[in-house]
Amino acid sequence: MRIHLINPNTSRAMTDKIAVTAREVAGLDVSVVAICPAPGAGPAAVESHTDEAWAALVVAQQVAASEAAGAPDAAPADGYVVACFGDPGLDAARELTNGPVVGIAEAAMHVAALSGRTFAVVTTLSRTLGRAHDLVRRYGFEDACVAMYAADVPVLELEDAGSAARETIARLCERAVRDDGADTVVLGCAGMTDLCADLTKRTGVPVIDGVAAAVGLVSGMVRMSVGTSKRDEYAPPPRLPAAGPQD
Amino acid sequence: MRIHLINPNTSRAMTDKIAVTAREVAGLDVSVVAICPAPGAGPAAVESHTDEAWAALVVAQQVAASEAAGAPDAAPADGYVVACFGDPGLDAARELTNGPVVGIAEAAMHVAALSGRTFAVVTTLSRTLGRAHDLVRRYGFEDACVAMYAADVPVLELEDAGSAARETIARLCERAVRDDGADTVVLGCAGMTDLCADLTKRTGVPVIDGVAAAVGLVSGMVRMSVGTSKRDEYAPPPRLPAAGPQD
Amino acid sequence: MRIHLINPNTSRAMTDKIAVTAREVAGLDVSVVAICPAPGAGPAAVESHTDEAWAALVVAQQVAASEAAGAPDAAPADGYVVACFGDPGLDAARELTNGPVVGIAEAAMHVAALSGRTFAVVTTLSRTLGRAHDLVRRYGFEDACVAMYAADVPVLELEDAGSAARETIARLCERAVRDDGADTVVLGCAGMTDLCADLTKRTGVPVIDGVAAAVGLVSGMVRMSVGTSKRDEYAPPPRLPAAGPQD
Amino acid sequence: MRIHLINPNTSRAMTDKIAVTAREVAGLDVSVVAICPAPGAGPAAVESHTDEAWAALVVAQQVAASEAAGAPDAAPADGYVVACFGDPGLDAARELTNGPVVGIAEAAMHVAALSGRTFAVVTTLSRTLGRAHDLVRRYGFEDACVAMYAADVPVLELEDAGSAARETIARLCERAVRDDGADTVVLGCAGMTDLCADLTKRTGVPVIDGVAAAVGLVSGMVRMSVGTSKRDEYAPPPRLPAAGPQD
Amino acid sequence: MRIHLINPNTSRAMTDKIAVTAREVAGLDVSVVAICPAPGAGPAAVESHTDEAWAALVVAQQVAASEAAGAPDAAPADGYVVACFGDPGLDAARELTNGPVVGIAEAAMHVAALSGRTFAVVTTLSRTLGRAHDLVRRYGFEDACVAMYAADVPVLELEDAGSAARETIARLCERAVRDDGADTVVLGCAGMTDLCADLTKRTGVPVIDGVAAAVGLVSGMVRMSVGTSKRDEYAPPPRLPAAGPQD
Amino acid sequence: MRIHLINPNTSRAMTDKIAVTAREVAGLDVSVVAICPAPGAGPAAVESHTDEAWAALVVAQQVAASEAAGAPDAAPADGYVVACFGDPGLDAARELTNGPVVGIAEAAMHVAALSGRTFAVVTTLSRTLGRAHDLVRRYGFEDACVAMYAADVPVLELEDAGSAARETIARLCERAVRDDGADTVVLGCAGMTDLCADLTKRTGVPVIDGVAAAVGLVSGMVRMSVGTSKRDEYAPPPRLPAAGPQD
Repeated sequence: MRIHLINPNTSRAMTDKIAVTAREVAGLDVSVVAICPAPGAGPAAVESHTDEAWAALVVAQQVAASEAAGAPDAAPADGYVVACFGDPGLDAARELTNGPVVGIAEAAMHVAALSGRTFAVVTTLSRTLGRAHDLVRRYGFEDACVAMYAADVPVLELEDAGSAARETIARLCERAVRDDGADTVVLGCAGMTDLCADLTKRTGVPVIDGVAAAVGLVSGMVRMSVGTSKRDEYAPPPRLPAAGPQD
Repeated sequence: MRIHLINPNTSRAMTDKIAVTAREVAGLDVSVVAICPAPGAGPAAVESHTDEAWAALVVAQQVAASEAAGAPDAAPADGYVVACFGDPGLDAARELTNGPVVGIAEAAMHVAALSGRTFAVVTTLSRTLGRAHDLVRRYGFEDACVAMYAADVPVLELEDAGSAARETIARLCERAVRDDGADTVVLGCAGMTDLCADLTKRTGVPVIDGVAAAVGLVSGMVRMSVGTSKRDEYAPPPRLPAAGPQD
Repeated sequence: MRIHLINPNTSRAMTDKIAVTAREVAGLDVSVVAICPAPGAGPAAVESHTDEAWAALVVAQQVAASEAAGAPDAAPADGYVVACFGDPGLDAARELTNGPVVGIAEAAMHVAALSGRTFAVVTTLSRTLGRAHDLVRRYGFEDACVAMYAADVPVLELEDAGSAARETIARLCERAVRDDGADTVVLGCAGMTDLCADLTKRTGVPVIDGVAAAVGLVSGMVRMSVGTSKRDEYAPPPRLPAAGPQD
Repeated sequence: MRIHLINPNTSRAMTDKIAVTAREVAGLDVSVVAICPAPGAGPAAVESHTDEAWAALVVAQQVAASEAAGAPDAAPADGYVVACFGDPGLDAARELTNGPVVGIAEAAMHVAALSGRTFAVVTTLSRTLGRAHDLVRRYGFEDACVAMYAADVPVLELEDAGSAARETIARLCERAVRDDGADTVVLGCAGMTDLCADLTKRTGVPVIDGVAAAVGLVSGMVRMSVGTSKRDEYAPPPRLPAAGPQD
Repeated sequence: MRIHLINPNTSRAMTDKIAVTAREVAGLDVSVVAICPAPGAGPAAVESHTDEAWAALVVAQQVAASEAAGAPDAAPADGYVVACFGDPGLDAARELTNGPVVGIAEAAMHVAALSGRTFAVVTTLSRTLGRAHDLVRRYGFEDACVAMYAADVPVLELEDAGSAARETIARLCERAVRDDGADTVVLGCAGMTDLCADLTKRTGVPVIDGVAAAVGLVSGMVRMSVGTSKRDEYAPPPRLPAAGPQD
Repeated sequence: MRIHLINPNTSRAMTDKIAVTAREVAGLDVSVVAICPAPGAGPAAVESHTDEAWAALVVAQQVAASEAAGAPDAAPADGYVVACFGDPGLDAARELTNGPVVGIAEAAMHVAALSGRTFAVVTTLSRTLGRAHDLVRRYGFEDACVAMYAADVPVLELEDAGSAARETIARLCERAVRDDGADTVVLGCAGMTDLCADLTKRTGVPVIDGVAAAVGLVSGMVRMSVGTSKRDEYAPPPRLPAAGPQD
């Protein structure tokens, strides 16, 4: 089976890192295709509602493009992962395919809810906590999510192994477990995907990366033949997404 | 004071109709500037999550453009109205200005909540009810909103006076009052703005148009010097919105 | 248009101060009539549920009196503001008039919800926080209201410019912004109306006075011809309010 | 022990009927004193928010009077029942005594929640359902309360054994059980107290009268020495209630 | 009337202590029968979900046995109390009898809700707080319950008068009142029943023991002839509980 | 990897049917071991709270037995599925293993939430809807679950291919989609596992079987190394489950 992993920001380095994680947890029968927009065709990082508005359109464009490309000879994707913690464009993406689409925020939260009673979210910038809060409510996890912390490090600084960002994040995870009684910690950025194993060891509780979680959920849904319901809200839209800024 | 009214779809006719309503309820000291994207620079109508993704970006672009234009000699807007019932791009718009920004869905719901205990939403397409439901929750009106109906007429058909759309909408309003005990009815599309007075007469309860409500709220906020809080989430974003598909 | 502003306590000084704020934010076409009960005909201040029970009856009596007086030659009020933060008698007032009626607590909260994602309430006495909590739930703002603080100063001490009350209130506003992440602060007493501008400057976020907010909302509703829905709950009551203690 | 049962309307006949029920369920060691305001000193019936505003003040006045009278030689009440389904003045009453105070709406709902998972409320006038809805939320029974019906009969007509009111009420109880899956039915008016046994037989499920429930709860609380917490909100108020309209 | 009080753990000492409290608050006409499983026929204490699974079965077995024994000559119980704070087996018990069944957690919370606006729970082990949290939600007290603390003392250590457990519990009660604004405190273990009076004195607010509360509620329900609704969910089950591990 | 699938009822036929489904959706690297109690060592079916109390203990016993058996030479299970729609014993099972444990009700609901906005539950007996309702709340899906229907057929009748049960279930699924706007349907009984494909075809929306969903989720969690958080609530319990009725 083929999973398309869409990172809506233009960082090829982050996209490649995400793909590594995705492939590690995917079963042997799963092929992961990691996609990101060309420079200038999407936001450099998703760090504001303004970035997110563009990211949502990018996700819709990429799904539409994948579906269109799939037609004659290439196999279309069996499922999609939206690899940005705000789950931008998730609803639009669900309109544009029959397959399952899972965002990494929802995936991490669903898995956290199966691993313990409570979880915390540790993310990059405090200005994005409002969006995270909206997602927690939309997905039904108000009761389970006991804390949300921002390390206040820019998304792209996570790429810099020498930065203090990783230690800051680790301390917030520890604090969530110790002071807020979080059973697990959800990492609030696709760029944190490679911190997961270390943080799990350090905190003593499952630290959940949305990329791994989403790949697991989408591939599971493909195996059990559950795609997106096309009943009404997610039926094919009257118009495809604009070709977009990148064209 | 100057209010910029942004319709994110490309229908100039609908934009002009909205502006008429807006000017009728604005006080004498309020000047309304009605804006919509050029053909091809935004969705023709907002009838899906896919359309909405583009509309959100359009709203952000228009606010950014207004703010930029305001700089040297033209007066910037004192406040903004997002004139599309899904309130697309509202959070992004709030990042991009110090002034108040109000969406017509939130405006109509807030006014409804002051006019009675309960309200119903009557909108165009059933596939948009999911988004309306999200907004009801986001704004805190789960308890107040007792029904949501879709007339299942396309947005642009409302422009056609000879269509059956208006009668369908009127019957849904009556049903909401009679069967669901709605104290008021919120019209779920900017394009219904001219139906408001007739429906109020026919149903015997206040039928609330979001455009009028939003103009009233934004101008009131300007008068009391309350803009958008720039504390954290809505502080200026690290990057302005992409120039967008229209360029 | 004529707005009747009803302060249910007997402090003429506070009533006059409130009227000043109200007139400042009202448009040029709005005339504000500020009313309070005669000494002995209402509570001296509203600082308990017991006071509030009387205040509710006073509000109903004043609205009924205004409506009755309006009949033959005097113009009745176009709308009413209940100028006491517990919004006492609001439901009764809505039964007694066709026009819009807005309480200052609900007004401030609605405006706060348009200015940012979160707000805090800073009020006078901790014993009134229970009532404030009830209102937050009734109006749908559980999610938006992130903190409630009481300065534990009596209502009437706010009138004394030399008291420490103002500094205490300012510090609580700062704390709500800094520690609780409040995007805005709602002032929980009509008597704080004159502190608003200073506190906005000091905290750097919009500090919202319910009197200004309510005048803005009621006058906006009058302009858009939205009064109180008379469908069932707020239809004229079978009996007018008792003449009341003042007679 | 002595329980004061306060009916805030002026119907002596209804008060006497309520007292009969109260005495039937009270233990042998409980003495019930049934109180109502003199004609003109309270509303004739509580059928609107306007009536309720007066009723709340009447309840506060009666508790204050009981407490004052208790001082030198007469034994003060050990607990109070507010015998009107809107629970008017309940918060004020709690400020005015150390003993327990229970409203008949809350009592009936608490008992219903112990008897089954779900309940319905069957009351007199539809215009009072808004208040009942507020109480359901305030007391935490949104999930348990599956239906609310109004017979649309005036409160005092229940006194007329020949009226059709009783049959209407019975049918609504049956409907709630059959169509809404109500495990029990809560009667939404003190004046329905004598219908309870018959309706239980007819519907086959417990039909709960708030008067009996409140007497049971208050007397139980007296036995276990649990009164009203005087911590802050319900500490003695700064001012006693106005002598009131009746004086 | 006869109330069966079921302690699902095998501690005869704790069962006897509970019975003392129960008899103190029961009216003169109430006879309390305190039951616990024989050693080996139930958990030694209920300190985990694993213990609770067994406790639930024990409760069902004991109710079924009481009901069966009641048949020919012995009087069956008029009502049941489940005397373990997790309310294990409560739903099953309700299926197995026509009489009322009340758990001590729900009883304490219902009484707390009548005594003040807010309460805290102080219990034994932090690992049981998840279950307590579930009960708070199930019973509708999310809004009322402002804090939950665990003393982290094993259940059976409460029996040891010389242990530090009592002081730890007292300090948590004080903290809940002072820092969390709890109007009352609910004791989260049947084994704390004898601490109630001292803690009430020390904290200055009602400290509520579920055993006393449950006896009060069940006997009140018997007096007003309200048992368990047998409509559907709680109708007699298709199979009686297994004879159980003790046989 | 090895998944233990625990059916707590004693039907070997149903257990075998469930195992077939489980193996179909499991990846090639997943071995499924299907377990059920011996006759007399568990309930014949789970159709009441009374049955469920026993089922919970059976689940705990089976997990404990698996874990114990795993010790010296046999590989312990990598994860567990509780294959009964009430998710009995789920919390206890999580205490007893480090691996992930997923119930089929929660699994189906989580997958439904990824496939559409809304879902309905179609189950066997109406008396079990209360439990299903509790689970919906516990898992956070109150907003997503738009309808719950019971076919009122006994669990074991589903085994009879000639019964009318299947048609009844199909019609309820169609009704949920048509009248309640369910995007997907969750089957509320492990015994319906073989109806899934046909119902998906008939209704045109994803019909979700909890067994398949749970196997997908547990195996995904094993692949991403996320087990049960052992922080506090789910740490190993002080006592293992009683040997139980089967011994």
